[in-house]
Amino acid sequence: MKTRERILRASLTLFNEEGESNVSTVDIADVLDISPGNLYYHFKGKEPIIAELFDQFEREINQVLKAPIKKALAIEDNWVFFYILFEEIYDFRFFYRNITSLTEQYPKLATQFRKLIRSKRQTIASILDTLRKVGFLEMTPEECILLAERCTVHVTYWPSYQELVSPKLTTGEAIHAGVHTLIGQIAPYLPEGRQEFLALIDEFYSNTQE
Amino acid sequence: MKTRERILRASLTLFNEEGESNVSTVDIADVLDISPGNLYYHFKGKEPIIAELFDQFEREINQVLKAPIKKALAIEDNWVFFYILFEEIYDFRFFYRNITSLTEQYPKLATQFRKLIRSKRQTIASILDTLRKVGFLEMTPEECILLAERCTVHVTYWPSYQELVSPKLTTGEAIHAGVHTLIGQIAPYLPEGRQEFLALIDEFYSNTQE
Repeated sequence: MKTRERILRASLTLFNEEGESNVSTVDIADVLDISPGNLYYHFKGKEPIIAELFDQFEREINQVLKAPIKKALAIEDNWVFFYILFEEIYDFRFFYRNITSLTEQYPKLATQFRKLIRSKRQTIASILDTLRKVGFLEMTPEECILLAERCTVHVTYWPSYQELVSPKLTTGEAIHAGVHTLIGQIAPYLPEGRQEFLALIDEFYSNTQE
Repeated sequence: MKTRERILRASLTLFNEEGESNVSTVDIADVLDISPGNLYYHFKGKEPIIAELFDQFEREINQVLKAPIKKALAIEDNWVFFYILFEEIYDFRFFYRNITSLTEQYPKLATQFRKLIRSKRQTIASILDTLRKVGFLEMTPEECILLAERCTVHVTYWPSYQELVSPKLTTGEAIHAGVHTLIGQIAPYLPEGRQEFLALIDEFYSNTQE
């Protein structure tokens, strides 16, 4: 692996584990056993590292977000989709831990983050709209838009919430709880069989967790 | 007003407007036209100011949170209750802008914040449970607990979300949208007349906003 790529990977790990504000370029160089000068040759500080990590995150998550728009998913695949979406977010979770301070410090991120949130909302709205049209969910188009927004807030802030209230959960457990809560939000729009659906989802997520 | 109280008020205003990390004790002294030494006589830095502001916030919000537990509200008063809850949160909104970094920097806050989130969840659960028992909402006790958690996440992270996606909204508009979205989350559990209820809420919130 090239030094440049190694720096990016080590930075991502450190940022996720320690929090971006607690990690310096010297810490990153230390972990890689390279000199700060060598790191500086590749990146002139933390800002370009963070910018490149965000670009990488954007590319990956956009791939995830585009799939259900290109082609509607089978109903049960939607729950897996949300799982994958959360996994992607948790891979780059340091961006989500302190969105407000990061976007203040790196204003370019604010624009990118807003765009990303719009894409999330569009994809979720498209999924819900498909479920509505096939009669799986019973709601008006207006309710569908509002539900998509609530789900977007949920996937964006769930990691911070979990870290605050249940700091000891593993990433897998936090994602599991996040998907479960998200589906719980959609369930009341089922015209019938809500309890059976919730029971199925409970079982499904207990299985995938093991 | 005593100097001590003036320092707290000016700090709260500055923290809310500029963000806590962008405000120094010198800035606070400047705004009050007192010397940094005079400020230091009252508070030995930002940490005790923040601690005292959180205690004040805790006292005020706990008053709000206890009311519906002491005595069940009339159904329509619940929506006003959420409005008051959001207003209280927005009065001390700097705590909510960067929960993760603030609680990292001031670990005592993490414990207090967790306790506060538990109180919020209890109050919201109690409100929803009352609505369930009188038949206004149709859900199982388990669904009631999950919905209370979702509403708790919503009231906690709505200010950050709004600031990110709609930075130009006034506080009044942001609160309005927050209550509206919260009620939209409860509405699907109405056994009937959901559309009429949503229309009523739309109208109600357009009125109070003016």
